Amino acid sequence: MKHLSVISLSIVLLGFMSVQSSQSQTIQVSAETEECLTCHSDIHPGIVASWQKSRHSKISPDHALKKAEIEQRISSTDIDSSLRFVAVGCYECHSLNTDKHKDAFEHNGYTINVIVSPNDCATCHALEASQYSKNLMAHAHTNLVENGLYQTLIASVNNPHSYANSNLAIGGTDTLTDYESCLYCHGTRVEVKGSVTKETDLGEYTFPVLEGWPNQGVGRINPDGSKGACTSCHPRHDFSIETARKPYTCSECHKGPDVPAFPVYEVSKHGNIFKSQSSEFEFNAVPWIVGKDFTAPTCATCHVSPVVAPDNSLVLERTHQFNDRLAWRLFGVPYAYPHPVEADLRGVKNSQGLPLAVELSGEPVAQFVISKEEQQARDSRMRKVCLSCHNSEWVDNHFARLDNTIEKTNEITYEATKILMDIWNGGYAEGLPQGKNIFDEEPERIWTSLWLFHTNSTRFASAMAGGGDYGVFANGRYQTTGQLYKLVDYLRVRGEAPGDETEETIE
Amino acid sequence: MKHLSVISLSIVLLGFMSVQSSQSQTIQVSAETEECLTCHSDIHPGIVASWQKSRHSKISPDHALKKAEIEQRISSTDIDSSLRFVAVGCYECHSLNTDKHKDAFEHNGYTINVIVSPNDCATCHALEASQYSKNLMAHAHTNLVENGLYQTLIASVNNPHSYANSNLAIGGTDTLTDYESCLYCHGTRVEVKGSVTKETDLGEYTFPVLEGWPNQGVGRINPDGSKGACTSCHPRHDFSIETARKPYTCSECHKGPDVPAFPVYEVSKHGNIFKSQSSEFEFNAVPWIVGKDFTAPTCATCHVSPVVAPDNSLVLERTHQFNDRLAWRLFGVPYAYPHPVEADLRGVKNSQGLPLAVELSGEPVAQFVISKEEQQARDSRMRKVCLSCHNSEWVDNHFARLDNTIEKTNEITYEATKILMDIWNGGYAEGLPQGKNIFDEEPERIWTSLWLFHTNSTRFASAMAGGGDYGVFANGRYQTTGQLYKLVDYLRVRGEAPGDETEETIE
Amino acid sequence: MKHLSVISLSIVLLGFMSVQSSQSQTIQVSAETEECLTCHSDIHPGIVASWQKSRHSKISPDHALKKAEIEQRISSTDIDSSLRFVAVGCYECHSLNTDKHKDAFEHNGYTINVIVSPNDCATCHALEASQYSKNLMAHAHTNLVENGLYQTLIASVNNPHSYANSNLAIGGTDTLTDYESCLYCHGTRVEVKGSVTKETDLGEYTFPVLEGWPNQGVGRINPDGSKGACTSCHPRHDFSIETARKPYTCSECHKGPDVPAFPVYEVSKHGNIFKSQSSEFEFNAVPWIVGKDFTAPTCATCHVSPVVAPDNSLVLERTHQFNDRLAWRLFGVPYAYPHPVEADLRGVKNSQGLPLAVELSGEPVAQFVISKEEQQARDSRMRKVCLSCHNSEWVDNHFARLDNTIEKTNEITYEATKILMDIWNGGYAEGLPQGKNIFDEEPERIWTSLWLFHTNSTRFASAMAGGGDYGVFANGRYQTTGQLYKLVDYLRVRGEAPGDETEETIE
Repeated sequence: MKHLSVISLSIVLLGFMSVQSSQSQTIQVSAETEECLTCHSDIHPGIVASWQKSRHSKISPDHALKKAEIEQRISSTDIDSSLRFVAVGCYECHSLNTDKHKDAFEHNGYTINVIVSPNDCATCHALEASQYSKNLMAHAHTNLVENGLYQTLIASVNNPHSYANSNLAIGGTDTLTDYESCLYCHGTRVEVKGSVTKETDLGEYTFPVLEGWPNQGVGRINPDGSKGACTSCHPRHDFSIETARKPYTCSECHKGPDVPAFPVYEVSKHGNIFKSQSSEFEFNAVPWIVGKDFTAPTCATCHVSPVVAPDNSLVLERTHQFNDRLAWRLFGVPYAYPHPVEADLRGVKNSQGLPLAVELSGEPVAQFVISKEEQQARDSRMRKVCLSCHNSEWVDNHFARLDNTIEKTNEITYEATKILMDIWNGGYAEGLPQGKNIFDEEPERIWTSLWLFHTNSTRFASAMAGGGDYGVFANGRYQTTGQLYKLVDYLRVRGEAPGDETEETIE
Repeated sequence: MKHLSVISLSIVLLGFMSVQSSQSQTIQVSAETEECLTCHSDIHPGIVASWQKSRHSKISPDHALKKAEIEQRISSTDIDSSLRFVAVGCYECHSLNTDKHKDAFEHNGYTINVIVSPNDCATCHALEASQYSKNLMAHAHTNLVENGLYQTLIASVNNPHSYANSNLAIGGTDTLTDYESCLYCHGTRVEVKGSVTKETDLGEYTFPVLEGWPNQGVGRINPDGSKGACTSCHPRHDFSIETARKPYTCSECHKGPDVPAFPVYEVSKHGNIFKSQSSEFEFNAVPWIVGKDFTAPTCATCHVSPVVAPDNSLVLERTHQFNDRLAWRLFGVPYAYPHPVEADLRGVKNSQGLPLAVELSGEPVAQFVISKEEQQARDSRMRKVCLSCHNSEWVDNHFARLDNTIEKTNEITYEATKILMDIWNGGYAEGLPQGKNIFDEEPERIWTSLWLFHTNSTRFASAMAGGGDYGVFANGRYQTTGQLYKLVDYLRVRGEAPGDETEETIE
Repeated sequence: MKHLSVISLSIVLLGFMSVQSSQSQTIQVSAETEECLTCHSDIHPGIVASWQKSRHSKISPDHALKKAEIEQRISSTDIDSSLRFVAVGCYECHSLNTDKHKDAFEHNGYTINVIVSPNDCATCHALEASQYSKNLMAHAHTNLVENGLYQTLIASVNNPHSYANSNLAIGGTDTLTDYESCLYCHGTRVEVKGSVTKETDLGEYTFPVLEGWPNQGVGRINPDGSKGACTSCHPRHDFSIETARKPYTCSECHKGPDVPAFPVYEVSKHGNIFKSQSSEFEFNAVPWIVGKDFTAPTCATCHVSPVVAPDNSLVLERTHQFNDRLAWRLFGVPYAYPHPVEADLRGVKNSQGLPLAVELSGEPVAQFVISKEEQQARDSRMRKVCLSCHNSEWVDNHFARLDNTIEKTNEITYEATKILMDIWNGGYAEGLPQGKNIFDEEPERIWTSLWLFHTNSTRFASAMAGGGDYGVFANGRYQTTGQLYKLVDYLRVRGEAPGDETEETIE
């Protein structure tokens, strides 16, 4: 009897101790961070609470480094001892590389950066920062803002328009509009424009004045010259791997008709299983094991995460260079084409002088796009993800359909382009032949919507096996041919096509 | 050893007792409600189960009143002793103020109202009912149905149309259609049209016959003359604060292209964090503490809930008068303008005699809109919510963008209005100058979609920092200028604009 | 003291034992399945893990049969002893009826089918398979592919188009496109096209080559001749009742503008409660008890599940013949009409010779549609679901609105059809009178979108009480009349209508 009670006690105490030990993990917070918290937990309780729930508040880099390789979440090994043994707190991140930060300012005796940049995060996450810099996304600001063609699209979309006497005129750039529209996702250029002194509840303080702030766009130009914002996907102060692995994060920028990755995912079998079953998935685990931690992939699974088998063996490495597994550029341009070689697209130009890596005929410009071999290498990495749950015939046939869809959507875009050429050459609208904005008249918009939304979406639906209906009736082939019919109708009601010399102009 | 076993026992028993005490909280259900439950738990198990899961079934007003002020969920203090000491059951709510209720009927010896109105809920929730009555929403039925301009929109949308000889004619009001469309959200007028005797499983019963029922629209006119339906947001019989705090509730009526608060929220950083992390939020807590109970706001957080700091201090009061924090009316009208002074808009008229608090030039009608000072007061309340997690520069810059977007979307709507005027004046369609319905021809619909959907949505995207893409390509600036190009194209293919005297007509 | 410690111990041990007993439920896996798992848990960990989490891995048919009738999940009683006493593993399903399976192949000494068909699942789930075969869905492949009218729609949507000299020509069928678009949901015809030998990590293997694979469409034609795929709704290898009961499953195919059941559900009160509260629902329970296991219905609740009261009494039987509760066919055709008698629609033809059970005037073709009595029988089954939570007046008024909406949307579609007839008869487009494709010109698409998307959606919004706004401004009456105005405008800008003889052509 007594023995039994001892056992019972032990069991109970064991339970207690394990709880306690997991709670009392004594990670030291630096004195500087303690000082930050003193005021900011009152002023910005949301931020502080978010950090307190984060892994950063509960682990030191030193602890992190001691994990088995497959469990590691950081990639730098030479972490300075001043950072190594304390929690990753306010001061640890906001005081890094202040000499490079134009947004650094004196604050209660410390030099603090407003913005923590990818270059700062690289202190512990060097590989991730380096990989990320090779993405189109890291260059999303300059790839948009320094591309003459996209600038005319932005002008026709974002700028003021004024009407008089049957004519519309497009006004100048509206910076505040750009910040909250295109550059919300593409990233702003954050610049320091002086400083301001404010009376606060805690006394008078001087802060830098930031232009282009706030912003968490993927290609943000930071005041230290670096590009990108890790908070795009690891938002706010919990920097959560769980959040980044959930498709809602990607959907902030990949949901609209031009980039409908999320809506396509939602109607895919993968998306259905995620939505129906993910409350039983484990999103915080590293390694993140196929079948064990999840039974349907999210965006991160296919594009970022390592493939780890239940026996902990690594089948495919993690990458923050998302194009590692992307053979094609599917969207954002009239035609899908092999992924660009360089992430910085500023040098790209086609034979017509347009800043595109593809001709208006749909032919890619060889020097700017990856080779067939590189496409295959990337493709085979992506297939490794698929093969965790599907057999090779399944996967082969899936990609055969995607290849066909890329070809067919490119072809139909080309047919639309020929009609638009006839409209321009017939003088029914003014575009390329007249050297005018190609996005600011009704038939031009019909053409733009055709590729920017519909063929684009059709490819997404194919690539992600995303329901059938999305690529047919929601935003796909029905709309694509509908726009085609509209374009022909536009031409016919105004007169005839001017003749066949048009095609020469396109090719 | 024995001591230890005592400890272990105590721990175990402690666990048991606390469970038991929370289960056996003996709230008395009134005899009348017991009688209701006897039959209705068989007939309508869904409703009964919903109530049984509710706080109403587990607490008496007396218990509720004894909570600390910051934890209180009711605002009335003078609750009659007949209600005070029992659970808030069927009879307690459905038997209130029967003298005012035209829907009251004799039922098994009791007088019962079919509908529980805001006036009845005010028995315990007086402040909430009073605040709610000051919302545009409380007047949503009359503001729509008694506004001549909206009536022509409804006619062009909901009424039968007949075609003959190249002409369409609009038929008369279709009441059943109105009930399930506009009035689903705006609320029906529920009227008693007699009574009916039915043979049921439990014998013969007589019930009132209700016109306009069922409905839970926000501006429902109840048979007791009161306006609104608390069940719009606290649905069915659990009256859950959790449900009301989740954005899905608001999305019932705020999801379409004309009122896209929910789709914008979904692609905002706030929405992403909610979707990714809210399974760890605590939605039932009162007070609802920033950072502790949630780390991203929902609709309720910004528009309704108090801001309570982790030390339980109140930063901003709760309000059920949602316009307390709303400086602008952003949607539902061609132009955004300062919020109307009165929630009942029936007296509003602009200089053209249209029932709008804004001119067709975009100028607000001063006497019907709040002053700059009142705008600032409301704005500063909203900012208190933001400042819990964001610094003042962040918040200032956010609202500077919104101000700019309001101005720019109003301007572009004005340009569109000028084109439509030219179309009307040119005789290519019949509208204001001809004294005809302004919503029932193709160019009028182009104009309507421009403001009702696209500039409107652009403002939502701005106000809620909702992704960039929504306000560009999903339902925003691309569509706005697209409609502008369509309107000009419509005019051009038919002839020229009639000249500049048009603008006078608008201003 | 000693007694107490015994009690405490007992409590603790009791806890332990119950955990253990639920974990160590010793269901035997067959030797064959063990052999499958040996390799496939390495090769396809996702599939295996999915199965391991499934009920199939944890229970034998024999255990299943011993449950009380109301708890039973299988309907066959004569299950062969070779299957009866082991878990439902890889081999148990993939080795069934191999003589009927053209996709059977030799694999490590066993004969294995690639595809498990409804006929195989019928081994244990005979009633479900039989009921399912009576759905339009089971015939979705042939009903689409063997219908001449739909074939012209598919051609205008999916086929290549080529442009020259102001003309568009439609090219031949694009099979791979069809597979991933229409047939994704409707189902492909899966055929064996030979075999292929592959070098794998585990040596050389020969597999059948499957055309039309992968696919989980509802009307898939399987290599054993059966129709359908149980995995459409019970996806992958967990065959989860939970997943099938969640609306995300249905949304894979019922989300687009042509079949917007899910978007309508989302903005309904039902959808709101599901989204806000379903983390507390119990989706795995059989019986699935109204009020106890859920307080708002999902798709399955209304269309499939039994209605079981909290006292375990059965109010309405489960059915996998979904049209058991469907009085009307609401979508997929220009007009709503009483549900077709037969699920196989290949014999259907109207008076104009079109393969529709409805005339172009909206009149149903009596011989192909169910009688008023049968409509009432189905209707009264559906109402039993509603009446679990709503009173009879509520339910009556709901269906009165739906009846009205069916009538009104049919009427407006008829008006649109008259305009299109005038356009055709005026020679402004070529359609029925010219014996041409009726989906491949701008005005034809305006007409098609009107019924395929907008009146259709209006009916969904009505049937499911789905918010008001969806059926007004998202995809409803505003769009319906908008298309009407476009059609009239199209006619007017081109000339006049040819006169009233047109109507004869329609009726």
